[in-house]
Amino acid sequence: KLYSPLQTVTLIPGDGIGPEISSAVMKIFEAAKAPIQWEERNVTAIKGPGGRWMIPPDAKESMDKSKIGLKGPLKTPIAAGHPSMNLLLRKTFDLYANVRPCVSIEGYKTPYTDVNLVTIRENTEGEYSGIEHVIVDGVVQSIKLITENASRRIAEYAFEYARNNQRASVTAVHKANIMRMSDGLFLRKCREVAENFKDIKFTEMYLDTVCLNMVQDPTQFDVLVMPNLYGDILSDLCAGLIGGLGVTPSGNIGANGVAIFESVHGTAPDIAGLDLANPTALLLSAVMMLRHMGLHGYGKKIETACFDTIRDKKVLTKDLGGNSKCSEFTAEICRRVQDLD
Amino acid sequence: KLYSPLQTVTLIPGDGIGPEISSAVMKIFEAAKAPIQWEERNVTAIKGPGGRWMIPPDAKESMDKSKIGLKGPLKTPIAAGHPSMNLLLRKTFDLYANVRPCVSIEGYKTPYTDVNLVTIRENTEGEYSGIEHVIVDGVVQSIKLITENASRRIAEYAFEYARNNQRASVTAVHKANIMRMSDGLFLRKCREVAENFKDIKFTEMYLDTVCLNMVQDPTQFDVLVMPNLYGDILSDLCAGLIGGLGVTPSGNIGANGVAIFESVHGTAPDIAGLDLANPTALLLSAVMMLRHMGLHGYGKKIETACFDTIRDKKVLTKDLGGNSKCSEFTAEICRRVQDLD
Ligand SMILES: CC(C)[C@H](C(=O)O)[C@@H](O)C(=O)O
Ligand SMILES: CC(C)[C@H](C(=O)O)[C@@H](O)C(=O)O
Repeated sequence: KLYSPLQTVTLIPGDGIGPEISSAVMKIFEAAKAPIQWEERNVTAIKGPGGRWMIPPDAKESMDKSKIGLKGPLKTPIAAGHPSMNLLLRKTFDLYANVRPCVSIEGYKTPYTDVNLVTIRENTEGEYSGIEHVIVDGVVQSIKLITENASRRIAEYAFEYARNNQRASVTAVHKANIMRMSDGLFLRKCREVAENFKDIKFTEMYLDTVCLNMVQDPTQFDVLVMPNLYGDILSDLCAGLIGGLGVTPSGNIGANGVAIFESVHGTAPDIAGLDLANPTALLLSAVMMLRHMGLHGYGKKIETACFDTIRDKKVLTKDLGGNSKCSEFTAEICRRVQDLD
Repeated sequence: KLYSPLQTVTLIPGDGIGPEISSAVMKIFEAAKAPIQWEERNVTAIKGPGGRWMIPPDAKESMDKSKIGLKGPLKTPIAAGHPSMNLLLRKTFDLYANVRPCVSIEGYKTPYTDVNLVTIRENTEGEYSGIEHVIVDGVVQSIKLITENASRRIAEYAFEYARNNQRASVTAVHKANIMRMSDGLFLRKCREVAENFKDIKFTEMYLDTVCLNMVQDPTQFDVLVMPNLYGDILSDLCAGLIGGLGVTPSGNIGANGVAIFESVHGTAPDIAGLDLANPTALLLSAVMMLRHMGLHGYGKKIETACFDTIRDKKVLTKDLGGNSKCSEFTAEICRRVQDLD
C-alpha cells in the first residue's frame, strides 16, 4: 500500500479552460489518494517597486515554500509593456530547463507510432535574451547570448535526466556551422559534460537535419538538448507528432528541486466554462510532477488510468475524437484510478 | 512544336555524386531537346587579392553572363577559414531568396499526402550575418541582423511568386513575440507589402505554431515566407514531409533574373561513381530553372516524365525503393520524355 506524508503544491489554475482542467486534475488526484495538498495562487503580474513587473508576493511566497507548481494556461497579457507570463515565471524562479517527453499514445492515431523522445530546452538565455537595438533607421539587431554556465548546466541536466530515466542517448542540437561562437560554445559544453557520462551515448546534429529526420523517422531520437529557440521550435514540432499540445506534458525545472509543470496549450476561451475541455495535458504534466517529487507509484497509477481511458475510446472529449464532457472523461479516469488500487 | 533559341546555363556539377547526377540531367535535357547549352565550371573557392575567399574568375564570369546556374552538391571545405561554398555563392551573386516547392510525389509513400507548399527563405542576413563576439570569458553573443530593405525585398518576392504561380495565400513566419524589434521589422514589411497584393490572402504565424501545425496537417499551408534561419529549418522539415532531400528541388534567386538552382542533398561519397545515385532532386531543380527561364513547356514535359517514372515504380534507384542504376532510371525518364513529344 502506498503511503507518503502530505506535500504542498502551488496550483496556478490559469485562465479560460484553466480552472476546469485544474479541478479535473484535483479530482483525479483525490481519487488516487495522491498525498498532495494544493495551495491555489493567481500569478497575473503586478507592477512592483521601480515599475518592474513581478508576480504577486503571495504567489511567489507559496512557490518559494512549496518549490513545486502546477500551472494551467495563462492568457497573453494585452497591457502595453506587460511581460509574457511564461517568460516571467521562468525568470522569477530561474527555471532553466524545459522538459517535454513526447511519447506516442496508444489508441490516439497520428501519422507516427512508437515516438518516445524527450526535448530538453535551455530556458533562460539564447535568442530570448531580450536585447535588441536599432542600429540605424531600418537596421535592427537582436542579440543571442550564450554562456558557458547556462550551457554546462543544461547539458548536465540532460545527461542526468537520461541516466535517471533509463535513456540511452543524448543528442545536442545546434547550428554551430553558422553560429560558430555561440552554438560552438553550447556544443563544446555538451561535449565536455558527455565525458562524465560514458554510460550515455552522445551525438550532435544540425537543427535542420534534426527537423528533416524527425518527420521522416522520429523513433531514431531519444533525449535531445538544445538552446532556447531551437527548443521552442522542436518541442512544438514533436508535440505535433504525438497528437498536439492537448496531450503533451511539460515541466520547467530550476535548481534545488524547484519546478513548475504546465500544459502548454492555450486558454481556449471559446469553450471555457462549457465542460468541454480536455484535461489530459495538464494531467500528464501533473504526473511528471509526481515523478519529480519521487511519488512514482501515484504517477504510474494516474498515467495508466489516463492512457487506458484514451485507448478504450469510450469516454473521450471532443478534441480526442469522442463526445463526452470534461467531467465525464474525468470521472472515467477517477473510476479507473480507483480500480487500480 | 516547341521552339526557343539556345540559352546558356552555367553548370556546376559539384562533388561526390554531383558529376553523375549532372550528366543524368544533361541526358534528359537532350532527350527533351531543351534549348540549353551548358557551360561547365568549378566553383571551389580560391584566395583572391587581400586573402579573401572568392569563387574562381571563370566561374564568376560564366554566371555573370549566363545569369543562370545549375549546381550539384559541393563537399564541405575542410581548409581552416574556408567558407561554406553555399554561403559564398549566395553572397557572390546576392541570391536573396531561397525557394523550395514541397509537393507530394504520387507513388512515393510518406506519412503525408497532398502536400503542396512553397517555403521562401530570406537568404542574405538574419542569423547568418556572421557577426559574433566574446563579451567576457564564457559569454558569447551572435547578432541577428534584420533590415528593412531585405525584409521588403523578400516579402515582395513571396507575393509576386504567389501571384505568378496561382497560389492563394502567403504566411509570414516569425517570433515577433520574442524578437520584437527584428522579427517585428520583418513582419511589418510583410504586412506593408501585403497591402499591394489584395488578391493574395496574408496571414502571420509563430514559427513554433507553424512547426506544430505542419506535422499535423501540412495541407493547410501554401506559400510561407520567413527570415533566414527559420527558412533553413522549415525548408528541411517540409522536404522531410514529401520524402527528403533526394526528391526536393531548390532555387536561389537574385535580382535581374540571376538564379542558381541546386539539389540540397549531400555529396554521398560512399556511392559516388557507382552509378547508384538518384538524380531526381537535381532534375526537379533543373525543371524549376526551365520555368524560371520561361521554358514552361520543356519543364512540364521533363517533370511529367520524372513523376510518371516514380509513380510507375518499375525503374527506381535504391533510395527510391527500387534496384535500378542511376543510368537505367535516367534512360527510363529519357524514353518517356521522347514519348511525350
Ligand atoms: C508564449 C511564448 C513566450 C513561449 C515561447 O516562445 O517560449 C511559448 O511558445 C512556449 O514554448 O512556452
Ligand atoms: C550548408 C549550410 C551552410 C546551409 C545553411 O545552413 O543554410 C544548408 O543547411 C542549407 O540549407 O543550404
